Amino acid sequence: MRNLNQHTITDAVIDRFADTPDPRLKQILTSLVRHLHDFAREVELTEAEWMKGIEFLTATGQKCDATRQEFILLSDTLGLSMLTVALNHDKPAGATEATVFGPFHVEGAPHYENGGDVGNGASGEPCMVRGTVRSLDGTPIPGARLEVWQADSEGFYDVQRDALDHAQGRGVLEADAQGRFHFRSVLPVAYPIPDDGTVGEMLRATRRHPWRPAHLHFMVTALGFETLVTHIFRKGDAYLDSDAVFGVRESLLGDWRLQADGTYLLDFDLVLNPTRVTTARAASAPRELSQVA
Amino acid sequence: MRNLNQHTITDAVIDRFADTPDPRLKQILTSLVRHLHDFAREVELTEAEWMKGIEFLTATGQKCDATRQEFILLSDTLGLSMLTVALNHDKPAGATEATVFGPFHVEGAPHYENGGDVGNGASGEPCMVRGTVRSLDGTPIPGARLEVWQADSEGFYDVQRDALDHAQGRGVLEADAQGRFHFRSVLPVAYPIPDDGTVGEMLRATRRHPWRPAHLHFMVTALGFETLVTHIFRKGDAYLDSDAVFGVRESLLGDWRLQADGTYLLDFDLVLNPTRVTTARAASAPRELSQVA
Repeated sequence: MRNLNQHTITDAVIDRFADTPDPRLKQILTSLVRHLHDFAREVELTEAEWMKGIEFLTATGQKCDATRQEFILLSDTLGLSMLTVALNHDKPAGATEATVFGPFHVEGAPHYENGGDVGNGASGEPCMVRGTVRSLDGTPIPGARLEVWQADSEGFYDVQRDALDHAQGRGVLEADAQGRFHFRSVLPVAYPIPDDGTVGEMLRATRRHPWRPAHLHFMVTALGFETLVTHIFRKGDAYLDSDAVFGVRESLLGDWRLQADGTYLLDFDLVLNPTRVTTARAASAPRELSQVA
Repeated sequence: MRNLNQHTITDAVIDRFADTPDPRLKQILTSLVRHLHDFAREVELTEAEWMKGIEFLTATGQKCDATRQEFILLSDTLGLSMLTVALNHDKPAGATEATVFGPFHVEGAPHYENGGDVGNGASGEPCMVRGTVRSLDGTPIPGARLEVWQADSEGFYDVQRDALDHAQGRGVLEADAQGRFHFRSVLPVAYPIPDDGTVGEMLRATRRHPWRPAHLHFMVTALGFETLVTHIFRKGDAYLDSDAVFGVRESLLGDWRLQADGTYLLDFDLVLNPTRVTTARAASAPRELSQVA
């Protein structure tokens, strides 16, 4: 254990995890250390770069507060979030696809009746969203719980507005006896992810833009089904092919149609994947997810 | 760029760095994303585990303040710090070996004359440390700058003691015209790294102990030489073979000998590696290092 060199140190660190009681934790730490060390060796990381990394991670953590999650933004912009979604939601054809959770979900969103105005004062073009929650075989899912959240016409979520003391553009609804839901809100627009932190630094240094195509977030839960965390993206958006967080799926494009009365209407059904015993681990994850942040 | 799956997303993220003006940054981010994604795929990271990781990193950043650097502790305990040292200091035989920087260095340590008491009130057995700073060929290096720092007899650095308003166990000295230095201090003892944060959580979950063998930190700088960041470890310490941060080198063992008057004496020479043009990058890194944290 003395005189470790750049080649022997990795196994020495991994050996130190030998007595870890939780085999899964041991597996994760072993893989993490191996890949982290391989990275450092591959780029021949200098000490100044190591210190820059320490400072970057520290500043990322310190940017986080009750309404800002810079590490989720970092994970999102490095594609790790969407990769994790892909690893856990290899859904059967016909089921609504999942996409990134994002950093703007908050617990305790207000409840609305069907037909209610989830916008609740958010700026934007008025719109109506409606659809049915159903199972893969077409059976409606009565009482499915839908949580929705979105940015206003200036691209801000309510939690990004310090002056605001109530929820706007977010709410919880329940599908009716026929699995149907409908609510009023505002038309989503494209917006830049917050770029006044370390993630913004990274984006500027790499000449990446911070924009996300317009979208509406959904988290749909129902007993016996895999929780669905997804967005509906607005068809025609300029950023569909360069989403800053790599979340776009062709199947998730929705058409907010302009109506004769000047409002917009989106019809979109949400199709849930029944829980199978074999996917129990993946299926249980989003439950925990929804309890955090 | 739509419909990325777990196999195609990595190249898509890397493509997004195509316009990065700094080729080194591009290389580092490319390698980082590839290894980070490989890790997630290898362990089939669940969403609950991903969120646990987000929370862990956030809490690590939020534990940091002016005198606590939890991300350095994390890097140290995962062996990344020592790996980085090994990558950058492949020193010729005879030069004093480098080891980890650690999280307890602070700028602005007080200056002492040779013979001064760097302990400055720190608890512990009194000791004297003396030696010569010289080049590989034996030539003394007059005026070399030595910065030293160490924990007291209870295992705490001064910055860990909230009630303390002055430096203890840390100081800056200058080698004399013959390259010699000597100072008084206290006998270093083994101590546990701070384990009231996320790193402590990780150590407990993996049944690792937090102890470091007794040591004295040195940072030695002199014009024309690679900056030396190292420790001298106390011969005979019980933790030499299980240092929590993997920093021990056989060549860095020093013998604090008990004297007739009840004090301890350590003789240890520090041998610097002349800067060569070919190692300019590695040699310049510690300069920047010393400006941080």
